[in-house]
Amino acid sequence: MLQTIETHEFANGLVLCAEPMASLESAAFTFLVPSGCVFDPHGRSGLAALSCEMALRGAGERDSRRFVEDLENLGVQRGESVGAVHTGYSGATLAKNLPQAIAIFADLLRRPHLPAEQLEAGRQVVIQELRAIEDEPSHKVMLELKRRHYPNPWGQPSEGDMASLEAITIDDIRRHYQRLYQPNGTIIGVAGRIDWRQLVDQVGELFGDWQPRPAAEPPEGATGPKVEQLRHESNQTQIAIAYPSVPYRHPDYFQASGAVGVLSGGMSSRLFTEVREKRGLCYTVYASYHTHRERAAVLCYAGTTAPRAQETLDVTLEQLRLLAKGIRPEELERLKTRVKSALVMQQESSSARSGAIARDWYHLGRVRTLDEVSRLVDNLSAESINRYLAAHPPADFTIVTLGAEPLKV
Amino acid sequence: MLQTIETHEFANGLVLCAEPMASLESAAFTFLVPSGCVFDPHGRSGLAALSCEMALRGAGERDSRRFVEDLENLGVQRGESVGAVHTGYSGATLAKNLPQAIAIFADLLRRPHLPAEQLEAGRQVVIQELRAIEDEPSHKVMLELKRRHYPNPWGQPSEGDMASLEAITIDDIRRHYQRLYQPNGTIIGVAGRIDWRQLVDQVGELFGDWQPRPAAEPPEGATGPKVEQLRHESNQTQIAIAYPSVPYRHPDYFQASGAVGVLSGGMSSRLFTEVREKRGLCYTVYASYHTHRERAAVLCYAGTTAPRAQETLDVTLEQLRLLAKGIRPEELERLKTRVKSALVMQQESSSARSGAIARDWYHLGRVRTLDEVSRLVDNLSAESINRYLAAHPPADFTIVTLGAEPLKV
Repeated sequence: MLQTIETHEFANGLVLCAEPMASLESAAFTFLVPSGCVFDPHGRSGLAALSCEMALRGAGERDSRRFVEDLENLGVQRGESVGAVHTGYSGATLAKNLPQAIAIFADLLRRPHLPAEQLEAGRQVVIQELRAIEDEPSHKVMLELKRRHYPNPWGQPSEGDMASLEAITIDDIRRHYQRLYQPNGTIIGVAGRIDWRQLVDQVGELFGDWQPRPAAEPPEGATGPKVEQLRHESNQTQIAIAYPSVPYRHPDYFQASGAVGVLSGGMSSRLFTEVREKRGLCYTVYASYHTHRERAAVLCYAGTTAPRAQETLDVTLEQLRLLAKGIRPEELERLKTRVKSALVMQQESSSARSGAIARDWYHLGRVRTLDEVSRLVDNLSAESINRYLAAHPPADFTIVTLGAEPLKV
Repeated sequence: MLQTIETHEFANGLVLCAEPMASLESAAFTFLVPSGCVFDPHGRSGLAALSCEMALRGAGERDSRRFVEDLENLGVQRGESVGAVHTGYSGATLAKNLPQAIAIFADLLRRPHLPAEQLEAGRQVVIQELRAIEDEPSHKVMLELKRRHYPNPWGQPSEGDMASLEAITIDDIRRHYQRLYQPNGTIIGVAGRIDWRQLVDQVGELFGDWQPRPAAEPPEGATGPKVEQLRHESNQTQIAIAYPSVPYRHPDYFQASGAVGVLSGGMSSRLFTEVREKRGLCYTVYASYHTHRERAAVLCYAGTTAPRAQETLDVTLEQLRLLAKGIRPEELERLKTRVKSALVMQQESSSARSGAIARDWYHLGRVRTLDEVSRLVDNLSAESINRYLAAHPPADFTIVTLGAEPLKV
């Protein structure tokens, strides 16, 4: 398949990346704005999340109602996410409606109303989200794992905490906008049936006169305790384990993520086989690769009944330690097939591509085509992965459990 | 866009439906086997789910390990689901690997090993899944709603109950196979880059000599209580509401689902606006259309903190009752745009289409192209929806809550 990636960097630092996909009728976009939760000030944890909630409540000439209705009249399927570094605004629609949709999001980024009279409703929505997570132990344990494994604030949950959420004022939100919503550091990824020249012109008109500001620097603090067993009255015990990896931009990334793929990801993967298939210890067990620009981790999860929790933890840790001894060539071959099959599916989705190319730019300062990724995967050898694993054996684990009784670690 | 749907009914009752999608590199398949959980015998609830788990543990000439590895060597992304009527086995892969993948699933359907020595591991996996649901209140409340709203066994959860799961023997599973895995009633949906003639020939070779058996008839019992408030120690209260609708095969289906779309589904929808945006009562609130062949329901969910639960219930019920007074033309116009945009995205996904065409055949005995659906949506009028709503006002609610205190209903 023929793939072209177009990129354009505007004078104010805004970056536009696009992948034309002529066989589609749709087009999708992802705005990554450098206003993630690591920038939340002390005592205002959750500010990025509440600001994102408020951003959707009117912008430019549209009030809250009109803003939402106009997006729906364009058939935009939208979604937001607040990550460590970025707030992401994404959407997909018919290709012909893309320019109008982008114009509406230009208002959101540059001219949001942030209406004071809607602050309480917005605050309650974020509080409800935070409370809902508390009620879902499989979600909560992973959140507590990241909080301890990464140096503060890199593992903090974007939803913040109750005290902070209750303290946030409309002025906090306005300052958050003024400080962080800016062209430098913002990346727009677009994929689907598009005309690149028209897109560059339109984005230039909408964003060209947006003034850059100094980039914010997130603070960096300490990590949490390596082992923590949180008490939770339940018949279930949730187990979460993290260990360091190399970030996406690192030359060994494909070795690192290949090793995780052998551990988890398919039905023949080691964790699935040893923990689930052979022993029936749990329904869900996985290891996943998670990256920031400067650091990364492998995050593992298993949820099981209390009487099986100790064995589940022991077997999972044993598999992690065994990985250091290396992988077999046939494991790598299956992994390659799986990854390349997944790449073909990704190439058929404008939404998946619009997000992936924007993230590529953030991590690499360039965008890889899926053909390039496919070649890099082809070139992976068991030897190179095993060299990586010998140099970076899974170790230095952070372990969090959530259950009625602590486990032996 | 040009869409063709091909269908073929084999002499033994097996149905093959396919949608060639020439612009894709992938192909996806969905097997719907008439072995869903409504056929679980008394005292063996969960049998369909455990049988599905066991089906993946070896078939034909492949043992458990080989079965899994061969599928991965073909790059198949697979998934299973056990519904009321069907067990679904689906997968997607590169188009060139489709024939081999289908051949492996032919073994699974016709020659599974169902190895006795793996029964305990399989049983534990299903038990762990059941337990995990108990721990996720937002999932549990919807499950308890369906259980009460539909006549038994149509709302029973496929995961069964502990006593039944512990009682299931390998002979139960073998009998389940002999009784329910059969060509008549099985539907295969395929979508993507395919050659229809080759596909018909291959499916004929793999399944043509499979002997039909009498179709099983699920029993039909009583519904549960209309209101039930389940006690659950938490700061959160989960609210679930159901009311009857018309099934997918009914001539008024598009009116019924259009009304649900005005209630829920977009940011401008009534529930989202009134419950979430204006009052901030919860993070998630929705109404969704759910259908069996002979009956259907609208299922609503809202999860909130205990002090806001009464208001959330009241506002949600008020919105349901208000719907009977009709919808406005501009609400319908936004809905049409949203639905048609979603149809275009669906047309770009082989996985989505392979499942949709198989389900269409089950419900309608034929398959609609997305062009046909698009025309039916275009022809919807606010008048016709309002006539439907006047004749079928949301009423006869089943209400289940899950929280520390009961609400006033």
